[in-house]
Amino acid sequence: MTVTSPVHPAAADPRSTVSLAAVDLWWRAANYLSVGQIYLLDDPLLERPLARDDVKPRLLGHWGTTPALNFVWAHLNKLIVERETNVIYIAGPGHGGPGVVASAWLDGTYSELFPRITRDGAGMKKLFRQFSFPGGIPSHAAPETPGSINEGGELGYSLVHAYGAVLDNPSLVAACVVGDGEAETATLAASWHLNKFLDPASDGAVLPILNLNGYKIANPTLLARIPEEELLALFTGYGYSARIVAGGFDGEDPAAVHERFAAALAEATDEIEAIQHAAREGGETARPAWPMLILKTPKGWTGPKVVDGLPVENTWRSHQVPLSGVRDNPEHLAQLEEWLRSYRPEELFDADGRPVAGLDAVRPTGTLRMSDNPHANGGLLRRALDLPPLEPRAVPMGERRGAEEVEPTRVLGRWLRDLMAANPHDFRLFGPDEVESNRLGDVYEVTGKQWQGEVLPTDLHLDREGRVIEVLSENLAQGLLEGYLLTGRHGLFTSYEAFIHVVDSMFNQYAKWLESAAKVDWRRPVSSFTYLLSSHVWRQDHNGFSHQDPGFLDHVVNKQASIVRIYLPPDANSLLVTAEHCFATRDLVNVIVAGKHPTGALLSLEEARTHGARGASVWEWAGTERVGEEPEVVVACAGDVPTVEAVAAVQILREQIPDLGVRFVNVVDLMRLQDASEHPHGLDEASFDALFTRDKPVVFAFHGYPSLIHRLTYRRANHANIHVRGFKEMGTTTTPFDMLMLNDLDRFRLVMDVIRRVPRLSTAYAGLSQRMDDERAAHRAYTREHGEDMPDVTGFPVLGTMAG
Amino acid sequence: MTVTSPVHPAAADPRSTVSLAAVDLWWRAANYLSVGQIYLLDDPLLERPLARDDVKPRLLGHWGTTPALNFVWAHLNKLIVERETNVIYIAGPGHGGPGVVASAWLDGTYSELFPRITRDGAGMKKLFRQFSFPGGIPSHAAPETPGSINEGGELGYSLVHAYGAVLDNPSLVAACVVGDGEAETATLAASWHLNKFLDPASDGAVLPILNLNGYKIANPTLLARIPEEELLALFTGYGYSARIVAGGFDGEDPAAVHERFAAALAEATDEIEAIQHAAREGGETARPAWPMLILKTPKGWTGPKVVDGLPVENTWRSHQVPLSGVRDNPEHLAQLEEWLRSYRPEELFDADGRPVAGLDAVRPTGTLRMSDNPHANGGLLRRALDLPPLEPRAVPMGERRGAEEVEPTRVLGRWLRDLMAANPHDFRLFGPDEVESNRLGDVYEVTGKQWQGEVLPTDLHLDREGRVIEVLSENLAQGLLEGYLLTGRHGLFTSYEAFIHVVDSMFNQYAKWLESAAKVDWRRPVSSFTYLLSSHVWRQDHNGFSHQDPGFLDHVVNKQASIVRIYLPPDANSLLVTAEHCFATRDLVNVIVAGKHPTGALLSLEEARTHGARGASVWEWAGTERVGEEPEVVVACAGDVPTVEAVAAVQILREQIPDLGVRFVNVVDLMRLQDASEHPHGLDEASFDALFTRDKPVVFAFHGYPSLIHRLTYRRANHANIHVRGFKEMGTTTTPFDMLMLNDLDRFRLVMDVIRRVPRLSTAYAGLSQRMDDERAAHRAYTREHGEDMPDVTGFPVLGTMAG
Repeated sequence: MTVTSPVHPAAADPRSTVSLAAVDLWWRAANYLSVGQIYLLDDPLLERPLARDDVKPRLLGHWGTTPALNFVWAHLNKLIVERETNVIYIAGPGHGGPGVVASAWLDGTYSELFPRITRDGAGMKKLFRQFSFPGGIPSHAAPETPGSINEGGELGYSLVHAYGAVLDNPSLVAACVVGDGEAETATLAASWHLNKFLDPASDGAVLPILNLNGYKIANPTLLARIPEEELLALFTGYGYSARIVAGGFDGEDPAAVHERFAAALAEATDEIEAIQHAAREGGETARPAWPMLILKTPKGWTGPKVVDGLPVENTWRSHQVPLSGVRDNPEHLAQLEEWLRSYRPEELFDADGRPVAGLDAVRPTGTLRMSDNPHANGGLLRRALDLPPLEPRAVPMGERRGAEEVEPTRVLGRWLRDLMAANPHDFRLFGPDEVESNRLGDVYEVTGKQWQGEVLPTDLHLDREGRVIEVLSENLAQGLLEGYLLTGRHGLFTSYEAFIHVVDSMFNQYAKWLESAAKVDWRRPVSSFTYLLSSHVWRQDHNGFSHQDPGFLDHVVNKQASIVRIYLPPDANSLLVTAEHCFATRDLVNVIVAGKHPTGALLSLEEARTHGARGASVWEWAGTERVGEEPEVVVACAGDVPTVEAVAAVQILREQIPDLGVRFVNVVDLMRLQDASEHPHGLDEASFDALFTRDKPVVFAFHGYPSLIHRLTYRRANHANIHVRGFKEMGTTTTPFDMLMLNDLDRFRLVMDVIRRVPRLSTAYAGLSQRMDDERAAHRAYTREHGEDMPDVTGFPVLGTMAG
Repeated sequence: MTVTSPVHPAAADPRSTVSLAAVDLWWRAANYLSVGQIYLLDDPLLERPLARDDVKPRLLGHWGTTPALNFVWAHLNKLIVERETNVIYIAGPGHGGPGVVASAWLDGTYSELFPRITRDGAGMKKLFRQFSFPGGIPSHAAPETPGSINEGGELGYSLVHAYGAVLDNPSLVAACVVGDGEAETATLAASWHLNKFLDPASDGAVLPILNLNGYKIANPTLLARIPEEELLALFTGYGYSARIVAGGFDGEDPAAVHERFAAALAEATDEIEAIQHAAREGGETARPAWPMLILKTPKGWTGPKVVDGLPVENTWRSHQVPLSGVRDNPEHLAQLEEWLRSYRPEELFDADGRPVAGLDAVRPTGTLRMSDNPHANGGLLRRALDLPPLEPRAVPMGERRGAEEVEPTRVLGRWLRDLMAANPHDFRLFGPDEVESNRLGDVYEVTGKQWQGEVLPTDLHLDREGRVIEVLSENLAQGLLEGYLLTGRHGLFTSYEAFIHVVDSMFNQYAKWLESAAKVDWRRPVSSFTYLLSSHVWRQDHNGFSHQDPGFLDHVVNKQASIVRIYLPPDANSLLVTAEHCFATRDLVNVIVAGKHPTGALLSLEEARTHGARGASVWEWAGTERVGEEPEVVVACAGDVPTVEAVAAVQILREQIPDLGVRFVNVVDLMRLQDASEHPHGLDEASFDALFTRDKPVVFAFHGYPSLIHRLTYRRANHANIHVRGFKEMGTTTTPFDMLMLNDLDRFRLVMDVIRRVPRLSTAYAGLSQRMDDERAAHRAYTREHGEDMPDVTGFPVLGTMAG
């Protein structure tokens, strides 16, 4: 098969200096080192016949995808040496961990970062042993892997990471090897369209290299089993200029494949350079067809062809460990030795196990080494954000608390506008078409929505260089921000609360990345990943049950306490303070839940700062406790809507039971509820008890599922007295207040809860409790009749809503 | 613009009888009814000038997508009347709720299912009022919507539902309108490739109709802003034969668009019939290029062109409610009336508000009505599975418990093989390339993997009609099974435990569907959705931290207790019993977590049946309590690996503290732990206390995150004494036993826990506790040295592992 090569201006590259022999040398060395990692405990240089005990007792790793990863790496090295191109390498088939580690060791980075693993025979032995070994390194590309920003765990995120990485990095090329298994995943299938956002002038380039090795774990892949015309049409349709390089089948000499791939890679690079030149120097504004490569090679290429009479190379059987019985089956052992020797290690390493000088011809230097590229250790490049003052955007308190009604996220949008103006090159906002809906549209005063598609006169804010990316895929928004952060920048992901579950698993994987990266000393801290979840459960009354789900918080709390933070700012100023805090943090995942609907300003900016710093505190103005006396009951709340209900409930109590001492506690930093031993933000016992008492009933109005509060307060002395109201999966299309009533989180129910929980009230105020229930019934009837809430009930303050 | 029409044998359809005038009549009527639902409380037939109070106080709904949904529906009606084609309608832009409801009312189904909503003016008024009204119906397509199997909440699942629906339904056509917003989602982008699985002989057909109306909430869509050649290349690449019909722009007369679309739809239908004929009669085996249509129309077509001086039709401004100030702005009110009258209601409805007779020409009858198609209310068609006996596949107990080591999922695979043989037409297995890895490969004795791509001689089990579908996308596997179940069939989704989080949000949406559907009396029960999660957290030691996550269980528990079930069968026979149970249930989501690695058979089939029926019970043989005496401590467990550790721990206790009375409790049905008032499977107080005591310490070894056990047992008398060990997010690439030690779930730690929790032991047996800790250290050192677990420690029974 031959290179399918479109007409191209620079078919021959005059700058070429690296021989394909050197490329092949690198490839063989990397393959040798990969097999060694999977199999060998000892005798790394095969100085004696391979013996049973030289082989690991548990054979773990994935050979199948590795030779192609090594092949591409070797060719990219050639490119870098020849052109000094600034390249990061993203291994989509992250299962090929041994490959990327092998090249990092070959180019010297590995020994620099892990001095124990020297670049010689002794180091090689340790390199082999540590792979997939207890106390060693994972079998997949991971935070421990130099040059990696893409975990090889859950598949599908390589291409979106590549696009995120090159945004605002005009000199960077992200070479992204996409596996054909991975290409079946939903996120990967959508990611190809990201070329419609990339600006050839101000962003870098992504070079996707789809490796069609034909198989997954036990099945052929879809893209490997469609005709070539269909495959090319697909990528033409995705907007790429695609080239197919196929080879290595039926024993074809790799030299021929090297030649074809080198030519294709040079052409693709020429195209990238031409596109960028045209946009940057020539004023070209049309969306280009970026190049991509399709490399069709046998799975497990250069590995055993037949094992136990069954074909292995070029089948799914080469996916993991092609020879599985090495320690017990002498034939397998012999095959392994033969396989290793087929790479001619004596030509690759000197007597001391050092890579031979011939490899230097294809070995980039310094940070041009893909393993050492600082973009793949983004903390090295990160600068702190210039955070503009909050004061100009803060909401004045008005005559009295709650009188000034504002949309909190709109207030945040004003400040984000300032932030984006002050940081025009390394802060971005990502959303699934919800930036405007979530009231952050003011940012368009200073930037636009990045877009290279066709633009019509009626369009607003579309911009080739815009710093907002909106695409109707939470997966893409999440992945872009991950790639952007891991390369040293900052950003925010805003989404509807219910649908953020679409990225539950991506959150998991990213959280695990952060958890592992924290243990890797050469990884520098990156900016935190911050979610702004608006259009939340309590204001999705109009969109109905499918849009009502606050469970992302529960999901987040399962990850290690060291990296997760949850904030429920009760009003606009608290939201400002929270956002300012989050954007200054590093290596965390921050989740902010905040409403977009008008709600009263409860705290001045100064108060919000104090409250935010405390994370949870008593609001004297909202409670009715008397100085020097223990309260009889605590009304606590977390979340903007529950806070309004809690304030309203205490208002009613103040009027109806004037002698009741109610403490009012608001929690903005949810992790304050956990014990200090369990979470870095956790309150110590004394502080918690000072807020919530050790023995008084607590009625807690919570934004999410009630069980989360129980989970967080489980170790607290007063836990048994904490009675939580929250979302209990009762939803429909109705009004905001009806949603609260459906879930027993409304003010009237909270009053009833207080009466029931305070022993002296339960009988004495049975009448009040009944009136509260009648209120609920009246509200429900009104809503059913009029299709809207009774006036005054959704606002704040809420005085005057009582019937009598 | 004109129809882009490939050469085709049957360009003119001789069977045509329905006039396009009738189609237009239906379209106008549906549009009128859609606008009425969004806006009107009263005066449904505009018998008087529209007044402020005729309009709803809260305007909720989505107009933008609706006219195109109605347009397609009208044309499909023509097709059905002409050809008696068996069609279900899937509205991807589920926001177009008013449209699908309108047509269901027009065709009569609505009044049959909801007799209150008569097919006349009085019913029309109620129809209008109930839409997005408290106590009424949701604004999106939902379980309440006749003919719907696709919730219009979270976008992206229409096409995969369509493919799931037509599997094994050779006569069915799923007409699936895909929105161009939805088309940006990850799942939708991947779903196009599902045509590589569909068998033209034994499956039905999907007719995707991509509606390019150009806009999302506030942005243009990607696919609307690429050149037509690119768009056609994309769908050619996806394997379709695509036609573009564009029209309605710049005031083009709809009559012309009707003509073009009718022709394209007839051609597409001809193509489907030709493909099916060739496969069914002609023995054609090549994968066909199925037709698809691209309908390019203005968003909000036929709605207000300009509002307040800004363009609305054909922009994002028509997404929701084009006229938002109707009650307060007389100009908006006048525009609304003009808009409604533009459909000429006097031609659509008679004086009593009944649809005019002219509509009957384009109104299919009986179950040919898309609203009444039984495939969209699959419970009507469902038959119970023929469940083969478990006995032939049950594992004999061997000499003593635990001696017989088997892979539980392999045992299940044997029985699944029987099940699939006994039910060859309505049971399917879906997986993301993990069926073989999860040890279910025996099913290939009786069926194959469905596949229409190229087949090579080395391939195994690929089959055009196979009943297993493997595609490396959890989203696709989930969506296919949803579509398959909702159309009345049965199936199983098997996946790795960690990566099932990829479908968290799809699970949410499906669970919410079931929760809502249960309240719709005309919806008949469908088979439960059953997950088999294997390759679970405790045996992903080799794949590392990214593969270790048991949090799906926490996620599931957030949904309503009425529909979620979680099973943790401790051994192979328990797994058989659990699976048999799950496949007989309806309207539930069953989650089964079971290992694939060799583990001892603990229960005979008979015992497993008894234990399964109880859900949680005392294992006398494993404990050391004496008859008639209260135990001193309870050792409880849930999950296969924790069960082995718990049994081993009690073995050690038996030897080392012979006089200690340990009760051993295993939980297979996790929801038994909840209170009977909270979950239908919950144990009542007495039963729970009889198992776990009211006051003895409980050491609970759990498969997942410990907090889940606390959450479920929160109301129990003995809750404060329950001490849970489980996954605490400590993971890496290591050995199975080291994973347990990292998370303090190993047998030695459990012994230490018992010593610490039982007051009389804590001092007296401090030495034993120390020895346990020394054991842990020795194991850890051995693992680090040898790269594998110490012999005997991973097996069962575990006698003899103690140092002294």
